[in-house]
Amino acid sequence: MNVPAPQLSEQIDAIFAAWGMSEPAREACVRLMIAADLRGIDSHGVMMLPLYDELRRDGRLKMDPNVKVVRESPVTALVDGDMSLGHYPADTAMKLAIRKARGSGLAAVAVRNSNHFGAAGVYAMQAASAGLIGIAMTNVWNLAIVPTRAAQAMFGTNPIAFAAPAGEQPPFCLDMATSTVAIGKIKLAILRGKPLPRGWAHGPDGRITDDADAALAARLLTPIGGTPELSSHKGYGLAAMVEILCAMLPGAWYAPTRERRHPGEKRYNVGHFFLAMDPHAFRAEGEFEDDLDDMIGALRSATRLDPAQPVLVHGDPERAEMERRGREGVPLPDALAAKIRSIAADCGAPALI
Amino acid sequence: MNVPAPQLSEQIDAIFAAWGMSEPAREACVRLMIAADLRGIDSHGVMMLPLYDELRRDGRLKMDPNVKVVRESPVTALVDGDMSLGHYPADTAMKLAIRKARGSGLAAVAVRNSNHFGAAGVYAMQAASAGLIGIAMTNVWNLAIVPTRAAQAMFGTNPIAFAAPAGEQPPFCLDMATSTVAIGKIKLAILRGKPLPRGWAHGPDGRITDDADAALAARLLTPIGGTPELSSHKGYGLAAMVEILCAMLPGAWYAPTRERRHPGEKRYNVGHFFLAMDPHAFRAEGEFEDDLDDMIGALRSATRLDPAQPVLVHGDPERAEMERRGREGVPLPDALAAKIRSIAADCGAPALI
Repeated sequence: MNVPAPQLSEQIDAIFAAWGMSEPAREACVRLMIAADLRGIDSHGVMMLPLYDELRRDGRLKMDPNVKVVRESPVTALVDGDMSLGHYPADTAMKLAIRKARGSGLAAVAVRNSNHFGAAGVYAMQAASAGLIGIAMTNVWNLAIVPTRAAQAMFGTNPIAFAAPAGEQPPFCLDMATSTVAIGKIKLAILRGKPLPRGWAHGPDGRITDDADAALAARLLTPIGGTPELSSHKGYGLAAMVEILCAMLPGAWYAPTRERRHPGEKRYNVGHFFLAMDPHAFRAEGEFEDDLDDMIGALRSATRLDPAQPVLVHGDPERAEMERRGREGVPLPDALAAKIRSIAADCGAPALI
Repeated sequence: MNVPAPQLSEQIDAIFAAWGMSEPAREACVRLMIAADLRGIDSHGVMMLPLYDELRRDGRLKMDPNVKVVRESPVTALVDGDMSLGHYPADTAMKLAIRKARGSGLAAVAVRNSNHFGAAGVYAMQAASAGLIGIAMTNVWNLAIVPTRAAQAMFGTNPIAFAAPAGEQPPFCLDMATSTVAIGKIKLAILRGKPLPRGWAHGPDGRITDDADAALAARLLTPIGGTPELSSHKGYGLAAMVEILCAMLPGAWYAPTRERRHPGEKRYNVGHFFLAMDPHAFRAEGEFEDDLDDMIGALRSATRLDPAQPVLVHGDPERAEMERRGREGVPLPDALAAKIRSIAADCGAPALI
């Protein structure tokens, strides 16, 4: 079934309201979850609702969070998320970074004590829509990425998003996990009965495997690069960089040592990092945007390996999906629609889809 | 032969002096070239001297450059390199970013009109040595990286370096090209008579090849990720991000459209981007460093895939090499030593190695 975005928004909002989530938290969380779905990033939109319900029941999400700036300068800020669902403190932080960058040319805002914030690209795009370069990152409490030479996961999928405004062209928007692929791709390979490409995942013994069932059981993903001979140490380094900016910088927690350092704590204390930069602090009006148009145009007209497959620029697939889903609604698999209805019933929210 | 670093510095300095390079340019260029060699990044140290000689003879390097800040705010600056060899404007820019970040917590400095700057990691480490988080990037005028689905190179190897200061542990320092490997690794495979791992490079037809000779002839590298099924679009996106920050932001030139947009220009107008950030703008004294120590310690003690192969942290190999080379000198292959002597003879500089 396809559900129009406003209708899906109302459903999620009704559930959050029934959970007792405060109005400002609800407004940000619903808007940014649906933004992920509209961009086609299904894995980071309403599909996350069952997990959020679980976090809530486990006492890891606060419904009436006091999200506040705990430290601030004209170009930096530290935001405490007070155990909110991540979208609300993340939205607060990115908006603050944008406001500061408009005044000063550059700003960085880090967030501690947060939770899952959905799709990183949605925040980077907030800056690009304001005419600024935007960066968004988050660490992730459940471990997935195995460092080069290791046999255990030491980072979450630690995504990086980078967006920049162009002139005639739409914004550039890179939105990537620092793992080679997401767990979802392994599930898809199982459904299709296919072996995994060598370099996606490790088996339970820590060795690279093409056995999709073994890989799903182990949940050990490679960093981008895949194998040591294809330079997986680079992806490992990028995952570590995200961890440093999202955990160490704001004072969020590094999952592998969380239990030891913070025994008995329920919260995951997820952290995020946002940066906004004004191109006009460096270039005259329009120059940056013209030059980015030129690069994007050159990429689009680069010689194709397969004439039928255009060379894409980052942001293209999401924009195409956004246009389609804006018209046709967000496609919900039956199982997910049923799950959402059941979550609504459980908390006494009306069923609106 | 192994040459002590001070002796190698004197040799390079003598050559630069004979070329007519001004004292401040020489000081920075020699220091940072040797720093790359000491860190074991042979491909970006004195090995580049023949290329620099060629650029000079082609009229693409100015020997008495007027490197200056052309635009400035408390947290941003734009530096014009005036066709200097890149190390000098890059050093100027990173020092300025460090000074500004010490005052404001955060600063970004971009450079236009520069040239090859050596190893990106050396600049990021300047920030880490000052107790700050440092980022350094550069675009590269000779094209190497082929975007996903394309059959031609549209970016240089566009490196990213990120360094962060720890407490007891040495600094974290990621220093990576956004290509899977450097051209040098293909040359090494030829010397060893080995086929290439699938995902390093394309042949002249644009298809991924394991034929090292075909790959060297084509000079078409993959972005990190390697192949589309291993998510090469992520490396392609990172290379584009570096281009946006290093070319579009300062007003340097994008190589694929340079000839068309700037006909008849000799200079490559290479650009760089530097960022420095003070962890103490976010955390109390020592907290960031303690938390980074904790992460680095956890990584070092992660379960090993092979008990004989320790899990490394970014910066480890370079630091080990720096200790060794500080004691034993910089190893120079005979052919390179001969080439340096011949360059010295050509310009009337004394032979000091």
